[in-house]
Amino acid sequence: MSMESYPFLSADFERCKQLVAPFVHRTPVLHSSQIDNLAGAEIFFKCENFQRAGSYKIRGAMHALLRLQEGGPISAVVTHSSGNFAQALSLAAKNAGIPAHIVMPNNAPEVKKKGVHAYGGQITECLPTLTHREREAERLTQETNGVFIHPSNDPMVMLGQGTACAELLEEIPNLTHVVAPVGGGGLLGGTALAASFSETACQPVGAEPAAVDDAYRSLQTGRIEGNTTTDTVADGLKTVLGSFTFPIIYNHVGVIVRVEESEIIAAMRLIWERMKIVVEPSSAVALAAVLADPARFKGGRVGILVSGGNVDLERLPF
Amino acid sequence: MSMESYPFLSADFERCKQLVAPFVHRTPVLHSSQIDNLAGAEIFFKCENFQRAGSYKIRGAMHALLRLQEGGPISAVVTHSSGNFAQALSLAAKNAGIPAHIVMPNNAPEVKKKGVHAYGGQITECLPTLTHREREAERLTQETNGVFIHPSNDPMVMLGQGTACAELLEEIPNLTHVVAPVGGGGLLGGTALAASFSETACQPVGAEPAAVDDAYRSLQTGRIEGNTTTDTVADGLKTVLGSFTFPIIYNHVGVIVRVEESEIIAAMRLIWERMKIVVEPSSAVALAAVLADPARFKGGRVGILVSGGNVDLERLPF
Repeated sequence: MSMESYPFLSADFERCKQLVAPFVHRTPVLHSSQIDNLAGAEIFFKCENFQRAGSYKIRGAMHALLRLQEGGPISAVVTHSSGNFAQALSLAAKNAGIPAHIVMPNNAPEVKKKGVHAYGGQITECLPTLTHREREAERLTQETNGVFIHPSNDPMVMLGQGTACAELLEEIPNLTHVVAPVGGGGLLGGTALAASFSETACQPVGAEPAAVDDAYRSLQTGRIEGNTTTDTVADGLKTVLGSFTFPIIYNHVGVIVRVEESEIIAAMRLIWERMKIVVEPSSAVALAAVLADPARFKGGRVGILVSGGNVDLERLPF
Repeated sequence: MSMESYPFLSADFERCKQLVAPFVHRTPVLHSSQIDNLAGAEIFFKCENFQRAGSYKIRGAMHALLRLQEGGPISAVVTHSSGNFAQALSLAAKNAGIPAHIVMPNNAPEVKKKGVHAYGGQITECLPTLTHREREAERLTQETNGVFIHPSNDPMVMLGQGTACAELLEEIPNLTHVVAPVGGGGLLGGTALAASFSETACQPVGAEPAAVDDAYRSLQTGRIEGNTTTDTVADGLKTVLGSFTFPIIYNHVGVIVRVEESEIIAAMRLIWERMKIVVEPSSAVALAAVLADPARFKGGRVGILVSGGNVDLERLPF
């Protein structure tokens, strides 16, 4: 896979924000003094778990689709996704009145499959490997004469995801850090772009399960690394960086903090118990990173992107 | 128990709102178009699960304590509570720098006991009957030379609880109904007073588990009825109306809707899955009532008081 250096411009991002805004909720920013005390920092939670379709992914899906439609009518969209982008693209396609074909690994959480159905997406299941996902998606794209939209490694998707951080930076002044979980890198890459365009001093930080620390290793080696296993409770973070997301993260994100599975589960429980909001394990990774590396964040004003809230309530890790 | 007709005045309520405001969060009002579609009405959720100490109870606890302190210094406060008022009074007493002694039934949820400890309240456990609760509370009040504050049947507590509804009515115009769960009647009574003082056409409605339908029967017979069993998942609603709460509810609340246990659990799950917020079973009773009686609420603008979010995550009913 070759690196693709896309020329992201501030003006593109301004246009992106305008395009996306009518189709997404401006989600609330929540705060807990109990969690501040534990963290030794002020923490601001941007609640994309309250977003349409239950995660930030609708931002990128909608932006990519709207930009594609500027080039002419589209007959169908296709993607592969473990769940949240699947639901988001189904909803975006429903808004646009076109079919969405979704390749999902057969071990995706049931609640995410139900979500895809609810938004009218058509699911094709496959074995849970990247190779199988890509092969099925390619077949469907040809059969439906559709357009493939990658769940993270697409410049328009990544830019769209950055609108969550842009809203956070507008609402909460003087953030020192903004922490995003990293899987495919769409959210972290978009967040890094948003922070960069904002001209604030806010530093983007990645948060990653140690069990799938491909992004951490990629920053060290300077090339895209893979994972040999994907054994993490954070089901949304099993994917790896791509040719568009890696260069942005490599150039703009100084650090990726790795966390253990037990730290993810404890942070998830803390959020549920203290903040009374439902977040999925992948979202808890960001708070876990702040609690795991207190020296880095001490006394700071830290934004956390709560990426989503799609959880199987019958299969909670606690 | 004799009926006590307390002269609640609009001016008292205005003063109550001013006294309480600095000590409570103004909680957000959330909305879900998916739930609107299911209900056939617009539903506005006043999220007291995000309130300090996890429920609306801090409003009444704080108001009662502030009013008592106007009469002179207090050495301690005492109450009996299955949990949420226990936490609230502990926090209120901590604010005031005095000890709180809390009598809790030995089957109270562990998370609520932990909350009391966290706010510095001192727990005395007792058998889970009203007689045992009252006897222990009386003993502690004498021993500590403290003041007993009833968790619901106290005019100042009830008035304080009404401030949640007052905020909702200020924020969302033209509500047709406001639905509150009913246990001891503090929230429903306060809500009825707030609706009455607001001079809107908004009708207060009670929501009650069929398994403990004492308030429903009390409205029918015109006197305070009890329950022979308290077998409901809604742990906050096992108590009965009192001499102050009953007359207010009798005079101002036209209807109490009863719901089955399965309806409570389904409504709770719906709120968690669609709205991504953690609510306790007692809170879900209000949405369950709206879904169980669609003809009553059809096409309306319905406020729901989401009373609290203190749940044992290891003992979820689904």
